Amino acid sequence: MILVRRLLGDVLRQQRLLQGKTLRDVSADARVSLGYISEIERGQKEASSECLAAICQALELPLSRVMSQVSGELAREEATVAGLTSLPVSAKVRADVTTVAA
Amino acid sequence: MILVRRLLGDVLRQQRLLQGKTLRDVSADARVSLGYISEIERGQKEASSECLAAICQALELPLSRVMSQVSGELAREEATVAGLTSLPVSAKVRADVTTVAA
Repeated sequence: MILVRRLLGDVLRQQRLLQGKTLRDVSADARVSLGYISEIERGQKEASSECLAAICQALELPLSRVMSQVSGELAREEATVAGLTSLPVSAKVRADVTTVAA
Repeated sequence: MILVRRLLGDVLRQQRLLQGKTLRDVSADARVSLGYISEIERGQKEASSECLAAICQALELPLSRVMSQVSGELAREEATVAGLTSLPVSAKVRADVTTVAA
């Protein structure tokens, strides 16, 4: 099952690192506890809408851009899952062998 | 503050109605309580990632498409808010008067 919170966490962490900010910086600007932001970035906690808005504001990122990135990542994962489930069994075995050999 | 859960709820309800499904249908297919789905659609409860995935599966909608629609709605609201905050005060008063007159 593809979980939005994992991809959202990845996008938020990536954006924070791109800006050279620490968890402490974002925590202070967003007024959200450092531990909570860390768990959100690791996909371990769902971000409430208020918390997500505060983090995006601290990163000076429009919410729409973050959600658009999440949507793109979801589409990529959905395509991967669809590709794997539509493979014939022989191709799947070959894919596994290739993976092991690589 | 723009809240993702409100726009997500709007998109989910819109998609359900487009398919002519009832809350009861989605609740049964997604194995999520009817009350919880209703609260999510009204933007009153955050949807967990698992619950969101189950609802999208019940609606046979890719998560990426739902999040893309949410992102579009967010962009529209952000543009409206940005437009209002960049208006000079006199224009805002005119806008209010126009709204009341309309």
